[in-house]
Amino acid sequence: MFLSQYGGKTYWSISMYLIIVYDIKVERVNKVKSFLRQNLFWVQNSVFEGEVTKSEYLNIESGLNDIININEDSIIMYKFRTDDMMQKEILGIEKSPIGEIL
Amino acid sequence: MFLSQYGGKTYWSISMYLIIVYDIKVERVNKVKSFLRQNLFWVQNSVFEGEVTKSEYLNIESGLNDIININEDSIIMYKFRTDDMMQKEILGIEKSPIGEIL
Repeated sequence: MFLSQYGGKTYWSISMYLIIVYDIKVERVNKVKSFLRQNLFWVQNSVFEGEVTKSEYLNIESGLNDIININEDSIIMYKFRTDDMMQKEILGIEKSPIGEIL
Repeated sequence: MFLSQYGGKTYWSISMYLIIVYDIKVERVNKVKSFLRQNLFWVQNSVFEGEVTKSEYLNIESGLNDIININEDSIIMYKFRTDDMMQKEILGIEKSPIGEIL
């Protein structure tokens, strides 16, 4: 369990929901992609999603920091208490329906 | 005001927070980008964010549907009640700090 803060409230949680978007130089992008596949689902070009524990999150954070060049690459990690804190709508093709993978 | 549902609870809201990620064929990507700039902030390659009202959201939804080819393009729209329902962490370059634009 870990403490997390959202909307000014503190929660005990066992996991969190992550959306990661990245803009990586071509020489490193495949390494980032195969690294993220270990814990998350690829949902679209440069976008991964999934539920992770705090330790998995910390591994992802340090692993990405090891791979990228912080002066050339950009990664945004959006964290939520659970995936039902968000609604998701797809226009056009759904590149990788998570439901089918679970 | 409008009713929205998150985490099994119903809320009255006046706005919502959006993260839009897209994977668009090259011939249409600039049109999508300039359209989204009208209401949202560009934060990274193929990623926009921002707070919008329900009618702005519906305009974005219908406007994107008018621009894209639903058999070739893919857009994911993540909706949240407010931006404090999420935490955001940047690794590497922050391509477009929203704080500086506000």
